[in-house]
Amino acid sequence: MREAFARIRRRLKRRQLDAILVTQPENRRYLSGYTARDHAINESAGVLLIPSEGEPYLLTDSRFSLQAEQEAAGFRVKLYPRGLFPLLRLLLKRHRIKRLAFESHYFLHSTSQTLAKLADSLKVELEPLTGFIEELRLEKDAAELARIERAVLLNEAVFQEIYRTLRPGRTEKEVAQAIENTMRLKGAERPSFETIVASGPNAALPHAVPSDRPLATGETIVIDMGLVLDGYCSDMTRTVVLGTPDEKTVALFRLVRKAQLAGLNSLRAGISGMAVDKIARSVIERAGLGERFGHGLGHGVGLNVHEGPSLNYRNRKPLAAGMVVTVEPGVYIPDWGGIRLENMAVVEKEGCRVLNRDTTFLEL
Amino acid sequence: MREAFARIRRRLKRRQLDAILVTQPENRRYLSGYTARDHAINESAGVLLIPSEGEPYLLTDSRFSLQAEQEAAGFRVKLYPRGLFPLLRLLLKRHRIKRLAFESHYFLHSTSQTLAKLADSLKVELEPLTGFIEELRLEKDAAELARIERAVLLNEAVFQEIYRTLRPGRTEKEVAQAIENTMRLKGAERPSFETIVASGPNAALPHAVPSDRPLATGETIVIDMGLVLDGYCSDMTRTVVLGTPDEKTVALFRLVRKAQLAGLNSLRAGISGMAVDKIARSVIERAGLGERFGHGLGHGVGLNVHEGPSLNYRNRKPLAAGMVVTVEPGVYIPDWGGIRLENMAVVEKEGCRVLNRDTTFLEL
Repeated sequence: MREAFARIRRRLKRRQLDAILVTQPENRRYLSGYTARDHAINESAGVLLIPSEGEPYLLTDSRFSLQAEQEAAGFRVKLYPRGLFPLLRLLLKRHRIKRLAFESHYFLHSTSQTLAKLADSLKVELEPLTGFIEELRLEKDAAELARIERAVLLNEAVFQEIYRTLRPGRTEKEVAQAIENTMRLKGAERPSFETIVASGPNAALPHAVPSDRPLATGETIVIDMGLVLDGYCSDMTRTVVLGTPDEKTVALFRLVRKAQLAGLNSLRAGISGMAVDKIARSVIERAGLGERFGHGLGHGVGLNVHEGPSLNYRNRKPLAAGMVVTVEPGVYIPDWGGIRLENMAVVEKEGCRVLNRDTTFLEL
Repeated sequence: MREAFARIRRRLKRRQLDAILVTQPENRRYLSGYTARDHAINESAGVLLIPSEGEPYLLTDSRFSLQAEQEAAGFRVKLYPRGLFPLLRLLLKRHRIKRLAFESHYFLHSTSQTLAKLADSLKVELEPLTGFIEELRLEKDAAELARIERAVLLNEAVFQEIYRTLRPGRTEKEVAQAIENTMRLKGAERPSFETIVASGPNAALPHAVPSDRPLATGETIVIDMGLVLDGYCSDMTRTVVLGTPDEKTVALFRLVRKAQLAGLNSLRAGISGMAVDKIARSVIERAGLGERFGHGLGHGVGLNVHEGPSLNYRNRKPLAAGMVVTVEPGVYIPDWGGIRLENMAVVEKEGCRVLNRDTTFLEL
């Protein structure tokens, strides 16, 4: 992360900022190695204060002091027995910080009012920033890619174990719970999002919540699952059928897979997220089902399960090598069901490398 | 919740506010019955717009439309295909809202900037509020108390099942994981916070994270666990010893229990949170261990596992009947271990009702 620091400092100086307060938990972990998680945005496990010159600080409370000291190599750990602001006052004065950036997208309005009062009393100028650290996280290095790949493969191992147990009569909720238990038993930190198991008509909702509906033969069953391993996330969707899928189902599977392959085959450094989305989407549109694919094609994955870059109609920026994205086209037919197929891939200079190996129901 | 609405409207009118935007997820659920959870503060499952007159709205996106319609009785569900703000513009104009409150403590600074622009263009005045809805949630009604009690009893059933399996050699992490799995298997929605299992010297940290340390005989093992059932939380701590506790351990157990009982015996409508904290704390102080009890005595529990009222040196307000609090004194001795005992109780007009029945290691 030494390089990330050098880049942050250069970018702070370029904007004439003396320091940045880092509150977003994954940014905090990325820069410091400190793995504690916030109980909630208003129950923070700590804040980084990174000056444009001099050593960076990790500010936290006594509950986390040991963990902070052990994990945040290169950071001075300071405790705030009376809350963040008295300590911050001290450090802003000590380091003569006159222009302070903070993470506007992970800072409560109420806290920003307290910060504004402090800044006012010290004649410090505040600069709300969005995505400043996240930009550094877009391109993953080799160590990060290795972790992401392990998270992908563990997720597939869990899927395979559960897939073998699917039977008509088991409910969506039971299957989702078995998936999340198996993740933990196999060593995942936690699911990276709430597992989706959606069968029959429920599968027509892209973000269905697992219900007490029992699985039945012949219907599509969408399973969207991911886990966190060593801080990094995986995210995969498979759609399966118990028994023999009918012709309509097979035709739709092939269509969605064709769209997915079109997307994957177009992925490479330099192409925009918008263009990749369009290439995959046009496969579904040509089949007259464009209206049935109502979400973006994919999103970045890393320390957050949803991060940049987006593969959708809004992202005009070129992708870069080392970015990790999902490619997850779907078709959703009300009162019938849905099919979504999702793999993760690393963008490379010439093309991409798909991280998934599981082929269940992909080549129907 | 009809009564809560009437109270909100009265309070809005008193402050000459035309409407409030409710973003805090538990406030949203409390008022609307809508149970969807935010994936994160920046991935909201919906927002309430409650005018001081006329019907309230639930604003969400198409992923949640079905659930919103099913659950939020009395609310008009409106979808925002292009994000919250275009829809909000429409509604603010339609209802001629000129003074709009929002929840400053659950509103990102970055979102508040977008809201400020919208308000500016419509000449709407914004009023950031904190705790406006939370205040209504402090005093629980009979239906809420029944749910909380069920969450407490289920938590105890999980504890008992795990307690029987504790053996020297099992690690803290294994036990914590078994607890959380058992919660789900027994029907809990999820743990209400990350389970603490801290043994030996780790038990000297009030907020220890479960480690790979194996349990050993004779040491104190602090188990702090809670679950969510039907939206409501439980929170309980037991400290146990494998084998026979030595004299020091027994003496400290008795001291902490005495402090807990002193706190519980003082709980009643009209006493302040500060006074209850002081009464329990003085038991530990008189034993010369005041410095070893470094946190507040307790906190409110409801839809959030940490909510008002606080039992600590800052809360001068009188408690009221129907409030639910934890009473959790502890002593923490560096390099030795710690003991914390936590029960939940409902404040009543004359005294309190302890919700816990489990007595494991309480009457040593």
